[in-house]
Amino acid sequence: MSVLRRLFEKKTLARDLLALSLVLGATAVQAEGPSLAEAYKALASRKMVDLTHSFSPSTPVWQGFGQATFTTASDPKTYRPYTLEKDGFRTTFYSMVGQYGTHVDPPAHFHENGITLDQIPLREMLLPLVVLDITPLLGKDPNHAITVQDILDWEKKHGRVPEGSFAALRTDMYKDFGNPERFKRHPFPAWSLAAVQFLFEKRKITAIGHESLDTDITSTLDAEKWVLGQGRYQIEVMAHLDKVPPTGALIVVTWPKVANGLGFPARAFAIVP
Amino acid sequence: MSVLRRLFEKKTLARDLLALSLVLGATAVQAEGPSLAEAYKALASRKMVDLTHSFSPSTPVWQGFGQATFTTASDPKTYRPYTLEKDGFRTTFYSMVGQYGTHVDPPAHFHENGITLDQIPLREMLLPLVVLDITPLLGKDPNHAITVQDILDWEKKHGRVPEGSFAALRTDMYKDFGNPERFKRHPFPAWSLAAVQFLFEKRKITAIGHESLDTDITSTLDAEKWVLGQGRYQIEVMAHLDKVPPTGALIVVTWPKVANGLGFPARAFAIVP
Repeated sequence: MSVLRRLFEKKTLARDLLALSLVLGATAVQAEGPSLAEAYKALASRKMVDLTHSFSPSTPVWQGFGQATFTTASDPKTYRPYTLEKDGFRTTFYSMVGQYGTHVDPPAHFHENGITLDQIPLREMLLPLVVLDITPLLGKDPNHAITVQDILDWEKKHGRVPEGSFAALRTDMYKDFGNPERFKRHPFPAWSLAAVQFLFEKRKITAIGHESLDTDITSTLDAEKWVLGQGRYQIEVMAHLDKVPPTGALIVVTWPKVANGLGFPARAFAIVP
Repeated sequence: MSVLRRLFEKKTLARDLLALSLVLGATAVQAEGPSLAEAYKALASRKMVDLTHSFSPSTPVWQGFGQATFTTASDPKTYRPYTLEKDGFRTTFYSMVGQYGTHVDPPAHFHENGITLDQIPLREMLLPLVVLDITPLLGKDPNHAITVQDILDWEKKHGRVPEGSFAALRTDMYKDFGNPERFKRHPFPAWSLAAVQFLFEKRKITAIGHESLDTDITSTLDAEKWVLGQGRYQIEVMAHLDKVPPTGALIVVTWPKVANGLGFPARAFAIVP
């Protein structure tokens, strides 16, 4: 057997093992706290807040991608669109870039060997949520990028950012979503590289999210590149971060399982104490 | 101020607000059971099982829709595909029908006035999961449609199907997903109309899911039409229902928020006791 072939088979085996472990989820830790039935009761009795925009062909998108098109799905043989009257059902055919609407960016979006969105563990889809609000700073500088000092100030009021949490940046920019030209402005309120480095390295958070189309305003997308380079995902174009508390909520954040996915529309919602 | 004192004051405030809301007759749901932090601990320490297939251009799909195409996203002006080398990122352009891979069917898929997938409440995206296993009956009839009696037999062993739960039909048909021609066979193990009527009317479940491309084998899709006609959603093409227990697990099931969506890829996973 050639060395190359052996290498390939090893890689395949490793991939199969990875796939298997992803299917089964991370090895279960010892069950802690209340039963699942009690936990369910606690979650189901709370208010839930949608952190996701509805998306359509007119949704603001980065100009380098272009708008999605939604058409009535048709029979691929006759090109006749399906109708409720003739066929008993109707549905839609989508043509769109993965980075559309509220969406997930996996590490592979920016990095050759980064994991794709089908490889992100289920365990990272239910997390404590912290919301870092920089709206009070935007009067003075409408394009303020959150600093490490801003995070330390936040911690003085709300306690330490919990390990393993999802940190969302509140800017109220989501309110411009219905005005695509304003929503796509540059610069915009954003993350700084130092802030995301502090959150992932010192606070050991799991993921970030923000309301804008991009993580930061540098031409090389330094903060985005760094976050994805850590093997971490981010959620872009989030909504309603003004409707959840700074701390104490949980976020459910998932996306369809696109094989080798480099980005796709996602759904995020908060469960509020 | 000490953490304990802050906690105490928060608790007192919460109690006062609760009292106030009772006085005012507010309709907010009352928080029950453990705190969100305790609930999170219970969920995060459990095993999670992905109930979703990865989808790709070769995924089995109903022949009346045709395969998805995935292409490298390009600059809409120059048609040059983006590359990591030149652009620092890469992503995918998708052309596909909404009913692709593991997907959600909202009521509007079959009914003029049914709700679309962006209108399904968040509250229906986290539910107790019951798995009705008909694999022992498939030796005798490989296309058995689950009956009311089968459900009553299940209840003798596992207790009453809980109100508000997500009922999934286990057939192990998901194992044929990698063999599209076999996966798309007709007939196949399915729901009967009487079984879904019993579950929604007598057990008051919230949603159903199954491993096949369709709910039932009637030419008029009687069970599917009836379920969606109740204002309820269903998840099709589920996976790994053999890896979750008949009862006691929770399901997290969500999908991107497509405006007026008639169907779209979804993500479902179980949290297992």
